[in-house]
Amino acid sequence: MTTETAACNDQHPTDRRSDDQYPTDDRVDDRPAGPGPGYVHGYSETEARRLGDQADTLAELLHAGTAYPAGSRVLEAGCGVGAQTVHLLTASPGVLLTAADVSADSLAQARDRVAAQAPAAQVAWHHGDLHRLPFPEGSFDHVFVCFVLEHLADPVAALTALRRVLRPGGTITAIEGDHGSAFFHPQSPAARSAIDLLVRLQAEAGGDALLGRRLYPLLTEAGFRDVAVRPCPVYADGARPALAEGFTLRTFVAMVEAVRPEALAAGLTTPAAFDQGVADLRRAAEPGGTFHYTFFKAVAVSP
Amino acid sequence: MTTETAACNDQHPTDRRSDDQYPTDDRVDDRPAGPGPGYVHGYSETEARRLGDQADTLAELLHAGTAYPAGSRVLEAGCGVGAQTVHLLTASPGVLLTAADVSADSLAQARDRVAAQAPAAQVAWHHGDLHRLPFPEGSFDHVFVCFVLEHLADPVAALTALRRVLRPGGTITAIEGDHGSAFFHPQSPAARSAIDLLVRLQAEAGGDALLGRRLYPLLTEAGFRDVAVRPCPVYADGARPALAEGFTLRTFVAMVEAVRPEALAAGLTTPAAFDQGVADLRRAAEPGGTFHYTFFKAVAVSP
Repeated sequence: MTTETAACNDQHPTDRRSDDQYPTDDRVDDRPAGPGPGYVHGYSETEARRLGDQADTLAELLHAGTAYPAGSRVLEAGCGVGAQTVHLLTASPGVLLTAADVSADSLAQARDRVAAQAPAAQVAWHHGDLHRLPFPEGSFDHVFVCFVLEHLADPVAALTALRRVLRPGGTITAIEGDHGSAFFHPQSPAARSAIDLLVRLQAEAGGDALLGRRLYPLLTEAGFRDVAVRPCPVYADGARPALAEGFTLRTFVAMVEAVRPEALAAGLTTPAAFDQGVADLRRAAEPGGTFHYTFFKAVAVSP
Repeated sequence: MTTETAACNDQHPTDRRSDDQYPTDDRVDDRPAGPGPGYVHGYSETEARRLGDQADTLAELLHAGTAYPAGSRVLEAGCGVGAQTVHLLTASPGVLLTAADVSADSLAQARDRVAAQAPAAQVAWHHGDLHRLPFPEGSFDHVFVCFVLEHLADPVAALTALRRVLRPGGTITAIEGDHGSAFFHPQSPAARSAIDLLVRLQAEAGGDALLGRRLYPLLTEAGFRDVAVRPCPVYADGARPALAEGFTLRTFVAMVEAVRPEALAAGLTTPAAFDQGVADLRRAAEPGGTFHYTFFKAVAVSP
């Protein structure tokens, strides 16, 4: 499917890779590394499916222009269930990808997904925390990090750790959403409140669902140069029923709905109020409704 | 200057104009037509300058792809002080433009601006209400309406009236902002409140500062077909100081600031609270800040 928006191309298409080898360090991290405690979306099968739907719907928008030369040493930091990994590999055949995640379960799902959808790809799977990657300085030509920083308590520390494993002149590509960018017709205070609950729960879990707007200052503070950030809008209206279904309903509304149990358990809302918010949000996907959301894609260079 | 975003091209570049003549009707509207009572931004010199700044900063973004063939009969409905008119004429030299506005003062300023900036242009100036244009049905090949619908009590009625003067197969291009699309870093409840005041005052004046998100359903309801709406994001960060100055400060913050007297007179805020909001909003234009806003550009066809 096509998203009705200009693709967000990377700013630094040229590439000087330094060699054709994987980083040769140990890929095994033997610290216990179960699901991250602060991952607001959870690790359910439903959530894995939502992430897959989201990635497929948005692949053209988010991955356009991100094509690394064959042989490049690429690190995907926080690959999760591999939802973005398969699109990265499709756009950049022949890269030497290292995919890292803190969740062993997610990593296993990512491995299965890549085996099914990109069987020819060369991927080294690394189970570990992106703040403490065991690779030497300058191990990678490129780092790709998508929908990860929003879940971290200290994104500058994470970005600084990623900069360490990038060679000088290597690039980082960071993609994040920003739930404060969501607006829709018909308007609804109940729908806005439901979104605000997701933002609040993510904040209480140590993350920031409004991180997209901060990519520029965060990357700058982490010591990157030539930071170039682009907004990637997704807009669905009555002329775009597939996008209303694939993005508004199956990506965004599904993400809001998924925090219902947690929001109710915390006493932050009532079933009636939350369900009204979700029902109102669904109206934005009907023929007379509209829904707008902005992702941000940043590319920056390691000095 | 370039805006850091993909230009929002029109969807219907092809054009079948039916003849090379102006509509031959009377251009003079002898009803009293002073400043529209519901124009929230007022008619001051400062405001005229703000509109000029805004139009110049955004010209590339908003006018890209809107190029009418020479000889086309084009109506600009609600030309105001001519801020967009000069860009329309630059992008479409040789069109037969009729520029209409309800304010005689604005029309005089528009005439001066066009004389100075596009002296070769052929423009018929029409003083009157766009709901009651005296032109026969099908008088125009194209209608252009920018930042006008947001100020009207019944935009569907206005669009229906404009459809009447479009020939079958002719196109309308409508551009609107949406103040609910504004978000920024650092976040600030005071800044959000100041923006909300602008939205509220515009609503009390009979308009809708959140109209952008409604363009698709409004055009559809007014009987247009092939309605195609695109978001046109404006995003300024530390890498884009000229845009932070030209858009964040001189366009958006200036627009918010302009409602200060009215908001205070209505008792909706205090000087301290309002000024804090404006000061916070200005921080979004500093090197560590970011500011994001979305315009919407629609193109639709008269059946």
